[in-house]
Amino acid sequence: MKRGTFIFEEKPSVLSFSAVVGKKEGEGPLGKFFDEVEKDSYFGQESWEKAESENLRRSVARTLKKGSFCADDIDFVISGDLLNQCISSGYALRSLGIPFFGVYGACSTMAESMVLGATMISGGFAKRVLCATSSNFCSAEKQFRTPLEYGGQRTPNAQWTVTGSGSVVLGNGDGPFIDSATCGRIIDLGVCDIANMGAAMAPAFVDSIIRHLKATGTDVSDYDLILSGDLGLVGKNIAIELFEKEALSPGDRYNDCGAMIFDNKAQDTHAGGSGCGCAASVLCGYILPKMREGKLKRVLLGATGALMSPTSTMQGESIPSISHIVSLQA
Amino acid sequence: MKRGTFIFEEKPSVLSFSAVVGKKEGEGPLGKFFDEVEKDSYFGQESWEKAESENLRRSVARTLKKGSFCADDIDFVISGDLLNQCISSGYALRSLGIPFFGVYGACSTMAESMVLGATMISGGFAKRVLCATSSNFCSAEKQFRTPLEYGGQRTPNAQWTVTGSGSVVLGNGDGPFIDSATCGRIIDLGVCDIANMGAAMAPAFVDSIIRHLKATGTDVSDYDLILSGDLGLVGKNIAIELFEKEALSPGDRYNDCGAMIFDNKAQDTHAGGSGCGCAASVLCGYILPKMREGKLKRVLLGATGALMSPTSTMQGESIPSISHIVSLQA
Repeated sequence: MKRGTFIFEEKPSVLSFSAVVGKKEGEGPLGKFFDEVEKDSYFGQESWEKAESENLRRSVARTLKKGSFCADDIDFVISGDLLNQCISSGYALRSLGIPFFGVYGACSTMAESMVLGATMISGGFAKRVLCATSSNFCSAEKQFRTPLEYGGQRTPNAQWTVTGSGSVVLGNGDGPFIDSATCGRIIDLGVCDIANMGAAMAPAFVDSIIRHLKATGTDVSDYDLILSGDLGLVGKNIAIELFEKEALSPGDRYNDCGAMIFDNKAQDTHAGGSGCGCAASVLCGYILPKMREGKLKRVLLGATGALMSPTSTMQGESIPSISHIVSLQA
Repeated sequence: MKRGTFIFEEKPSVLSFSAVVGKKEGEGPLGKFFDEVEKDSYFGQESWEKAESENLRRSVARTLKKGSFCADDIDFVISGDLLNQCISSGYALRSLGIPFFGVYGACSTMAESMVLGATMISGGFAKRVLCATSSNFCSAEKQFRTPLEYGGQRTPNAQWTVTGSGSVVLGNGDGPFIDSATCGRIIDLGVCDIANMGAAMAPAFVDSIIRHLKATGTDVSDYDLILSGDLGLVGKNIAIELFEKEALSPGDRYNDCGAMIFDNKAQDTHAGGSGCGCAASVLCGYILPKMREGKLKRVLLGATGALMSPTSTMQGESIPSISHIVSLQA
């Protein structure tokens, strides 16, 4: 047991999964892969926060249905989101009656919840664990940046928060399996620019990947795909540079969910996607189905999170970042 | 295995613990039991958020030192707090380099982190896990209610957020032990009054206690103390009524950390204490030492959390609540 890394002898499997996203995500390169694309930016609700919560609720309902599960079949749900006090999760899940662990990992939440869920399954503490997260462009802009009505100009390195939710049920059964996982450390190299989250998070991603490779005795060439959560185009390039410094050459095996989900030129998303829902919807809508189909055999997902708040930023603090790793095997 | 309850065959032990609190908490009935009482409400920092983070950092440093641990001896840290994006935890822990799981359970965080930490120890995934949380009166008032400068009148059923932090190191060794634990469900009976959090949270506490008793085949009389986290005086009375409805009579065996930490008449704290730091500092400053001394043999701690945000409240939402249970044995 290397510090921070879990190697599962009893490999938990991903029994069911789904991704529900917004209109812009549906118009992007991965649009056709998502389970549901909602065209109403309010998801039929009266506020963006409630829209995000409804988005999460729908993804969870679909994941349960696709696996023929009812809420009573699930031992625990592990969920969190970007909204203050994680209200998207709290309100989306309150009617289900499932024992609930709330987590906060910013945009690394999908991986964090899966790491914890996998330990519960592998440790024999649960038969089935539901892991979920969400983000919403409008609720995130309102909370973290400026009101949309303000019409603020976005910098070229700014990312576009994905409106979307992904969820999985972990348990014992057929693949894809989680063979190992690594819990991230908080890395803060002093980046203070909240319009450049990719730069803040890239070192945390590379740190966790290197720790995971060392602990599992694997090399980048052992994986079909190494995926960061939402570094975006700027952060992705920094990650590539950092890999090179460590003499790692993942080449085309490395990609970033934030770089994949939008066509940044056609969709004017600048440096690409971000948000808890970015890694979650790309994983659940695109990656896991490809693994079921046998088109991807081994995937390392390193979802990335920036742990600052608007208050800490106003107080001059830099951006502490984290990346949790889930290793998936078909 | 009853849904939501963990019964640990290999019982994790609480190896080290400490509580660091503010001036008002130091002047309360439990004042002499805390490891450190800081008289400066800013903890030597420039903002209340940084004060809270410094409070958490000091508690963690003391807990490590009391157990003769350095950061490298700890496999994981599990922490969260009330501040938006859990910045108290993120900034307090970033320099330690310990793999970090962020959690959000509002004021139930101390128990939530200990439940998760105990599963990691018992499941063989870690040798030592650090669990921590904090709250701060000034940062909480600013974020959740009104700026202190506003001088708002407090209602009689309002609670006073504890300035304090508690932390523990879990591992294998001498007692106190965690023999079992229960993960809470989200309970929302429609209470919308954010000045009456005790009323919102009491049903979640009683729900979790009953589930825990049933799952472990124990009765209230098996415990020296059944402790709610921060229901305060109003919520405590509601919990007593709810116990009676369930034909449970814990009597003097039941108490509430929020009712214990302040002298509500002398200290003008109205319905008592609240906040993540309430259950955490009472547990780490008062309960765990009493268990080490053999004065308490079996204790059920049900830390309680309210999962709303100021935004959800302004949007007319009720308060979803949760309570996680840790069963401690000397």
